[in-house]
Amino acid sequence: MTTDRTRVDAEKLTDFTTKALQKVGIPEEDAQITAHMLVVATDLRGVDTHGVARLARYVSGIKEGLINVKPETKIFSQVPSTAAMDGDQGLGFVVGYRAMMEAIHRAEKTGAGFIAVRNSNHFGAAACYAMMALEHDMIGIAMTNARTTCVVAPGSTKPAVDTNPLAVAAPAGKKAPFVLDMATSVVAFGKLLLARMAGASIPIGWAIDKEGMPVTNPAKAISNRVRGEGGLLPLGGTPTLGAYKGFGLGVLVDILCGVLSGSSASILKESAPETRRNTDHFFGALRIDSFLPVENFKKSMDEMIEAFEALPTLPGVKKIYVAGGYEAEIEKDRKANGIPLNSKVIQELQELAKELGIEYDLFHISPSERKL
Amino acid sequence: MTTDRTRVDAEKLTDFTTKALQKVGIPEEDAQITAHMLVVATDLRGVDTHGVARLARYVSGIKEGLINVKPETKIFSQVPSTAAMDGDQGLGFVVGYRAMMEAIHRAEKTGAGFIAVRNSNHFGAAACYAMMALEHDMIGIAMTNARTTCVVAPGSTKPAVDTNPLAVAAPAGKKAPFVLDMATSVVAFGKLLLARMAGASIPIGWAIDKEGMPVTNPAKAISNRVRGEGGLLPLGGTPTLGAYKGFGLGVLVDILCGVLSGSSASILKESAPETRRNTDHFFGALRIDSFLPVENFKKSMDEMIEAFEALPTLPGVKKIYVAGGYEAEIEKDRKANGIPLNSKVIQELQELAKELGIEYDLFHISPSERKL
Repeated sequence: MTTDRTRVDAEKLTDFTTKALQKVGIPEEDAQITAHMLVVATDLRGVDTHGVARLARYVSGIKEGLINVKPETKIFSQVPSTAAMDGDQGLGFVVGYRAMMEAIHRAEKTGAGFIAVRNSNHFGAAACYAMMALEHDMIGIAMTNARTTCVVAPGSTKPAVDTNPLAVAAPAGKKAPFVLDMATSVVAFGKLLLARMAGASIPIGWAIDKEGMPVTNPAKAISNRVRGEGGLLPLGGTPTLGAYKGFGLGVLVDILCGVLSGSSASILKESAPETRRNTDHFFGALRIDSFLPVENFKKSMDEMIEAFEALPTLPGVKKIYVAGGYEAEIEKDRKANGIPLNSKVIQELQELAKELGIEYDLFHISPSERKL
Repeated sequence: MTTDRTRVDAEKLTDFTTKALQKVGIPEEDAQITAHMLVVATDLRGVDTHGVARLARYVSGIKEGLINVKPETKIFSQVPSTAAMDGDQGLGFVVGYRAMMEAIHRAEKTGAGFIAVRNSNHFGAAACYAMMALEHDMIGIAMTNARTTCVVAPGSTKPAVDTNPLAVAAPAGKKAPFVLDMATSVVAFGKLLLARMAGASIPIGWAIDKEGMPVTNPAKAISNRVRGEGGLLPLGGTPTLGAYKGFGLGVLVDILCGVLSGSSASILKESAPETRRNTDHFFGALRIDSFLPVENFKKSMDEMIEAFEALPTLPGVKKIYVAGGYEAEIEKDRKANGIPLNSKVIQELQELAKELGIEYDLFHISPSERKL
């Protein structure tokens, strides 16, 4: 019997993450919430770019005092369905969780809840929050802008919006829930970092330089962006192929997160002082049974997903996935067999363990091994 | 002094459209609403594919009895913010107007209003309804699915969703409002019809055939789609360039319009009988002052739009537009100088006038001419 020692146990990794966050001052409940988001809602679902691979960065942000470990989030509202929230510079996961819960509570009462949040920080994967709606039989929505910009507008080469992701989750019956989580750029910025780490080139159509020419060297694309001379392309890529749509979606996310929360669009943050360069979010929940019986909705979702999965495929394509379907398959595997972390991330976590004085023992033990 | 006699007067065209619709049984108020949507909210803004160019088709649909001219739309709701609506097979414009007004009324009370609509028909441009929110200082949302499919899923070549457009409108102060109205495919199907009419080829990246190969002949792309052997590509085009995002957005529109309204996703309608092959919509309104003071929102929108417009441009690009900005410029020109209709549309309208026994006199007279 062999065990893949690069695979770590989800439960152990969640505990480890909770402890690490507590060590730098995050209260237990908030640390548990954050660990759940990073591990269960992200790494376990195969979204490796947004899970514990970023834990060391969050920890150092907290240590540098950029993040308020005990935020007193405030809600401003005079009506039942909508509100603005001030995140008090808290950890994005904590602020995001509270805001999404607020949206869900409001949707319970009125059918819809929407919260725009200012003064927050990086909140990980947007899907984490959208998916919170699922167990309440609601449709969940989550978006975020950023402190910087890295995506160019069509016709320009200077970054104008961030990758401004949006996520929507809707429950199904027998089938995996619909979970769409997408950057509004052709790719997320993390894909450039991954390519650079792997020493690979990036496809034409992801990034351009200051002359508008394609960049295929990820290191060059990253340094171009830092200098504001080129950046990622909005979804669609070129105007002929719909770049105005991707850019429009990016601006929409900035309106709902930055403008509607009382903060500002990302493009105006570049010149703001570091302490005011916050991240903003937008959350929404729609109660399904305020439209139709939940069982009818779920049955109809199943029928739709089954029809997509029954589509004929091109040679080499095994299966047509609806958003969230692939992640659900990965989740099943990783729950049973552990999360395969890459060696660089494992090394980072081991160093973090030493630095914070916590134990590192994350190896996944399969059920059959446990019995031995 | 010369006048461009292909330019027609917006006011006269609105009256003409109203009369034409009344002639086939649409009540006066509903005819006025529809004419406003087609002319003022669409043709005047330069969205020529969705304006009176389609009037003859709506009229023949009504004559064939496919559209209920006096729909008794019904609202199903137990909560203050959300509801389902049955459109009673009415004209899409009439059903859409009523549903969006319902969303706005609910947002007035609770901050948010969302309505999912089943049993409706083609409602023109989604932006018409999203923009209804603007004068109420709200953010407006509108989406629609269709009776058929024409966009393939990534990895397949059989149409799986329709172009499923979504629109969002948000007011600004001095600047033109943000109005995003986008098909979730690379292009709208109407672009194929326009290219075929013009005898032009279409760019690689718009459509594929049943082998997944690019199609550049629009007539071939149209006939492939009719046979279900190929179709338009989702926004993003290829999986490497984000096609899963465009497809995901298309599915999202089908969930909110088709599934949430109690109808079904478009992919399941192909096999339904003609009388049940309805169109579904989804509308939303968010009251801005339930998040922050409206004047702050509008000032922040202006600052954002000005920052985008100040971006450096690539050679040959005059100006960076935010969604809705270009249409606002066209609107200003067309209000002053009339709407330039193409000769085929003028011919159709003249034939329609004869057929229905109404006067055709739409020439735009400039203010300077009026004074003579």
